[in-house]
Amino acid sequence: MKSYREYLWFETKKRREYLNITGDVERAVKKSGVKEGLVLVNAMHITASVYINDDEPGLIQDFDRFLEKMAPCDPRGYLHHQTGEDNGDAHLKRQLFGREVVVALTEGKLDFGPWEQIFYAEFDGRRKKRVLVKVIGE
Amino acid sequence: MKSYREYLWFETKKRREYLNITGDVERAVKKSGVKEGLVLVNAMHITASVYINDDEPGLIQDFDRFLEKMAPCDPRGYLHHQTGEDNGDAHLKRQLFGREVVVALTEGKLDFGPWEQIFYAEFDGRRKKRVLVKVIGE
Amino acid sequence: MKSYREYLWFETKKRREYLNITGDVERAVKKSGVKEGLVLVNAMHITASVYINDDEPGLIQDFDRFLEKMAPCDPRGYLHHQTGEDNGDAHLKRQLFGREVVVALTEGKLDFGPWEQIFYAEFDGRRKKRVLVKVIGE
Repeated sequence: MKSYREYLWFETKKRREYLNITGDVERAVKKSGVKEGLVLVNAMHITASVYINDDEPGLIQDFDRFLEKMAPCDPRGYLHHQTGEDNGDAHLKRQLFGREVVVALTEGKLDFGPWEQIFYAEFDGRRKKRVLVKVIGE
Repeated sequence: MKSYREYLWFETKKRREYLNITGDVERAVKKSGVKEGLVLVNAMHITASVYINDDEPGLIQDFDRFLEKMAPCDPRGYLHHQTGEDNGDAHLKRQLFGREVVVALTEGKLDFGPWEQIFYAEFDGRRKKRVLVKVIGE
Repeated sequence: MKSYREYLWFETKKRREYLNITGDVERAVKKSGVKEGLVLVNAMHITASVYINDDEPGLIQDFDRFLEKMAPCDPRGYLHHQTGEDNGDAHLKRQLFGREVVVALTEGKLDFGPWEQIFYAEFDGRRKKRVLVKVIGE
């Protein structure tokens, strides 16, 4: 069994951003040399998500509006802020969109449907944060 | 290490349907010959989910009402529709219910609790769509 | 390829509780002897979640309030209750927080960011319930 681990680093300019990281994951898979197996891609921070959906700007704005409606950015709205933090909304947004994706590798490629793209969703950015890519297989 | 990949095809009659696919996944696992490992089951389209919960008709209606309340089917409600699409709600419902499940295989079987059943949740059906099953292990 | 499976048992005193199970998972990984691979941790019951986030009491209360707002505990609110059940809310809360996490193992350890902690979220407790830990790798 082969395995390979890589960290991807991001520092967004805005508090919330949605980055298509499919190419980064494809490069890591290629480096791993794994042809048949699984790749795990997860946020290493608890105020960010990795998810798979379409790369369409209107849809991404719909996602952002939805998350802001569900868990609004609000300095007074969260008990978590009694610790001095201001990112309670970001922890909740991450729970809704999830931490990770697991993708099948077949013949050395991400075994994807026609519109699947991997996104890093940052909900509390403007600082350096990481995504983990772990490949296992043969 | 063994690996096995199979696509399951579905074409629902209604826009939204919830199909119990546990038997399909069990058959794929059997074909794989894997006794100890993991099976990944994911929607290959971004307006559908794969999730694990109970096969009880009232509960499935509760799920459907909940998703429709959170992200209503609404021709004017989504920026995504400026592209000519009409399925913004389906992309959001999918985000809430997730893309995939990963299930442990032990002694050649899905290592499940008493009520776990795998569902394919279609949020924009009436056309052919796929689910991927990838088995790895020994 | 090595594999290892262990069940963790829990019986909470309250209907809803959030338990940090990171130490239990670390012990299972150690027993497995796997240095490079993946560990799957999933609820085996469909009214509970396993998720990764911060171990901060205010945040956990924020999560609980959020889930109760989204899917309130309500004897009359769910069609599922026509079967005699009273836990429709717990099935929905579980859908929002997810069933499972998959974590990378590198050099024998959970490959975690600075604040990642694994939680068992019980939404219908006061009875014995299980979490599955499955480790695969080398």
